[in-house]
Amino acid sequence: MGDEVILMSFWSSMFGMRTMIALEEKGVKYEYREEDVINNNKSPLVLEMNKIHKKIPVLIHNGKPVCESIIQIQYIDEVWSDKNPFLPTDPIQRAQALFWADFIEKKLFRCGRKTWATKGEELEAAKKELIEVLKTLQSELGDKPYFGGDTFGFVDIVLIGFYSWFPAYQKFGNFSVEPECSKLMAWGKRCMQRECVAKALPDSEKLFGYVLQLKKVYGVQ
Amino acid sequence: MGDEVILMSFWSSMFGMRTMIALEEKGVKYEYREEDVINNNKSPLVLEMNKIHKKIPVLIHNGKPVCESIIQIQYIDEVWSDKNPFLPTDPIQRAQALFWADFIEKKLFRCGRKTWATKGEELEAAKKELIEVLKTLQSELGDKPYFGGDTFGFVDIVLIGFYSWFPAYQKFGNFSVEPECSKLMAWGKRCMQRECVAKALPDSEKLFGYVLQLKKVYGVQ
Repeated sequence: MGDEVILMSFWSSMFGMRTMIALEEKGVKYEYREEDVINNNKSPLVLEMNKIHKKIPVLIHNGKPVCESIIQIQYIDEVWSDKNPFLPTDPIQRAQALFWADFIEKKLFRCGRKTWATKGEELEAAKKELIEVLKTLQSELGDKPYFGGDTFGFVDIVLIGFYSWFPAYQKFGNFSVEPECSKLMAWGKRCMQRECVAKALPDSEKLFGYVLQLKKVYGVQ
Repeated sequence: MGDEVILMSFWSSMFGMRTMIALEEKGVKYEYREEDVINNNKSPLVLEMNKIHKKIPVLIHNGKPVCESIIQIQYIDEVWSDKNPFLPTDPIQRAQALFWADFIEKKLFRCGRKTWATKGEELEAAKKELIEVLKTLQSELGDKPYFGGDTFGFVDIVLIGFYSWFPAYQKFGNFSVEPECSKLMAWGKRCMQRECVAKALPDSEKLFGYVLQLKKVYGVQ
């Protein structure tokens, strides 16, 4: 069957990175389209395919859209189920993986963003919270090589895009997560050895430049 | 197999209602335990079984916890798969159902809460947003009897608990969603004809009293 798969995203989006990694891990052939997010000039196709949120990443499979990155990973796992399963088969383990994905979704973007977009007390609180969130994740990782156990799985895909942002969080927030989260950092390095991950994650210097642009756009000194 | 299923929740929680309805729709025998949420005096079992968020509802199946109501519905659908499937089998339709569940999760609680917890401009903005959210959902419902099509499904379960809160939103926000959302209200009435739904949803008058209590607790005049 001639599958037509299109991913519309933006290079710095940790959400888009997830979907790209999921496609790559499954060996799906897809067309990548970079969207002009920073100038808020997204293509008509994004606006048409994600009418409700008008956000990237948007995955289009044979003309039909799938929105929201976590749902995209689940979708990719279901459709291309013959290779590299992301979610475990046991319902309790599946529920736990979905729980950690939801935890990452609820916590990490919000306090990560504050490391470069806020100052003073708000910044200090965000740094503390970020370290707590990462320590909680590290504790869930435990001594396993991946959140998925011996294999790179669903939670790994959901979290790894944020790892590429850690240098920016640390630089602009002027703090370090490494002393308290060394095991989590080692997990990130381990994931980066995978070709699919290395390909999807951006370079830190490029990200620093992008955050400086964002700070200007949002008027953050 | 002797399944031990426990649901720990609080009567007014639209999230807990979901899980109760899901269990009832599947005909699962379970023990319901009411938690003392209003006095912040939850049982040690809730705190132990949901260490991360310490929130209800918590579902315990044969000693193992499942947290977050949307994940609980998915779990129940997977474990008791022989009766009344909630999610469609087609991956695109599944992704769409998950998308709407996520939309409800992101939008409805936050602006619904503001109808009784805020005043002035913030309240007016919340009322407008709530009506927009409900109109969007109504548009997705279209002329179908249920979000699940001809059968009561995943999105119906996710949304219906909020329907029991509409009278409180309208009373305390001093507005009406009915003129613009008559089809959605008709959907709610249709769902209420199901025994499982009617059993799980609380009485409006009881909810009014509870919101008055909440307003005192949060110092909202």
